Amino acid sequence: VPAGQQLVVTTDVLVSGVHFLPTVDPAALGHKSLAVNLSDLAAMGAEPAWFTLNLVLPSVEESWLARFCEGMYALARRYDVQLVGGDTSRGPLAIAIEAYGFVPRGHALTRAGARPGDRIFVTGTLGDAGLALAHELGRRALPDTEYAVVRERLERPIPRIEEGLWLRSIASAAIDISDGLAADLGHILESSGVGAQIALERLPLSAVYRAHLAEAGWDPALANGDDYELCFTVPVPLLADFEHVREQLPAGATEIGEVVVEPGLHIRQANGTPYRPRSAGHDHFAEFPSPSGRGPG
Amino acid sequence: VPAGQQLVVTTDVLVSGVHFLPTVDPAALGHKSLAVNLSDLAAMGAEPAWFTLNLVLPSVEESWLARFCEGMYALARRYDVQLVGGDTSRGPLAIAIEAYGFVPRGHALTRAGARPGDRIFVTGTLGDAGLALAHELGRRALPDTEYAVVRERLERPIPRIEEGLWLRSIASAAIDISDGLAADLGHILESSGVGAQIALERLPLSAVYRAHLAEAGWDPALANGDDYELCFTVPVPLLADFEHVREQLPAGATEIGEVVVEPGLHIRQANGTPYRPRSAGHDHFAEFPSPSGRGPG
Repeated sequence: VPAGQQLVVTTDVLVSGVHFLPTVDPAALGHKSLAVNLSDLAAMGAEPAWFTLNLVLPSVEESWLARFCEGMYALARRYDVQLVGGDTSRGPLAIAIEAYGFVPRGHALTRAGARPGDRIFVTGTLGDAGLALAHELGRRALPDTEYAVVRERLERPIPRIEEGLWLRSIASAAIDISDGLAADLGHILESSGVGAQIALERLPLSAVYRAHLAEAGWDPALANGDDYELCFTVPVPLLADFEHVREQLPAGATEIGEVVVEPGLHIRQANGTPYRPRSAGHDHFAEFPSPSGRGPG
Repeated sequence: VPAGQQLVVTTDVLVSGVHFLPTVDPAALGHKSLAVNLSDLAAMGAEPAWFTLNLVLPSVEESWLARFCEGMYALARRYDVQLVGGDTSRGPLAIAIEAYGFVPRGHALTRAGARPGDRIFVTGTLGDAGLALAHELGRRALPDTEYAVVRERLERPIPRIEEGLWLRSIASAAIDISDGLAADLGHILESSGVGAQIALERLPLSAVYRAHLAEAGWDPALANGDDYELCFTVPVPLLADFEHVREQLPAGATEIGEVVVEPGLHIRQANGTPYRPRSAGHDHFAEFPSPSGRGPG
């Protein structure tokens, strides 16, 4: 660990039938297994360093493994992270990755720093991965061109590493949205001992999602986490600095609300009335596919 | 990471039906999941620091989890290692632990340092866990008192942490025996580019094993790794120093042979003829229970 830096580690496990459909393209699975862990590093403002891989496979299929590695290594090269070790075993398909990163001492982003008055932002757009999953599960029928766009979000999420690095000196709290905005912003609120008000119509949606907003409603944006965007809070005195940083963020950022004293997450519709998502986010012990149509986190 | 120290990490995954019987006592499973990882740290001469846990469970059963944690935390307390994070998911029972330790810079034990002439040692005794497994699988019938002794070796192996620390300045190579002496010593030989001659009758056996040696033969000691002893090599010039260290090793150590130039593992019987184990060690992709009667590594 370089002098003046702290080691940051994170681990996520993906299980067939829970976090992904057994029919998934192995290259996409290789990408996503690493991406969800890099996303956790991003949420801490850490620079990725290396990772370990635990791979449980029903059997050794060379072509499957080759595709899996292809997807994983392509992403690893992009962020210059190295696979340094791991373990393999026979068993029901599951992937556990542990990712390591560095952050200057005392500068890691956490969930616990949000204070009343702080503004709340999210990177990129929300809900595309949820639309793709609904399509795959036969609950929604998207035209091919639209499905191609949102499928990429579901299968190959981009960890918001650069965004996390930029936010290190700006954000008072941050988290990556893996279980849905409502659930993950909820984690910030709980850890920080605060509440939040967000405006439904401010949630950033893609063009594809906007075209289906009438039927799909807001739940894919609130309760699906597979987009792996960052949600973060910025203190008002730092908003001017943030405007400069914002231009540097590849995925951009949208202000969606404000931290308040009163506990809980309060979502307002454009007409001023409160909105409640049908589901609160991904429950790792719920049945999959879940009856509410939300995706795995 | 403290100044002058290097971080050492290791990870092992245990899958139900592959590494343990589904009927295993959850407390024993909690112990063993952590023990196999601490054993890897021991083999590197590292002092354990902390660990992360990925737990995949078919469902949340409070009493099962309580027992599992009991077994795991008892061992964690013994070596003063802390659980610092992890992930949980629904799915077929599997446990992936990543254990972290420290070792003075440049002093980690590896598999690659064995040189011709070095003497080969193992800690403790070999094969008891294999006997216990054979009993559990109905392939061998042990009296209750004997089964109680060897079962403890199978279910609650003691990671040879103290031994690893003592060996740091003495051993030229080391490994923990998780896949069987033949297979794991084989890893040292391969990494070091050397061969070895070992004497079958020198393998250290427990009193219970000795009583069954006639029927059981030497394979449980050669091809079963669940005892989690250390195998290590000592250069001849350091043998005098090692005699002092040896008295400090809680599990003791037995000299079993010598590193040679000629590649391969050569096992001699007392009458001078070569011996070949029926199986070369644990194959993680073999069926379990395996037809050869060897245990999971």
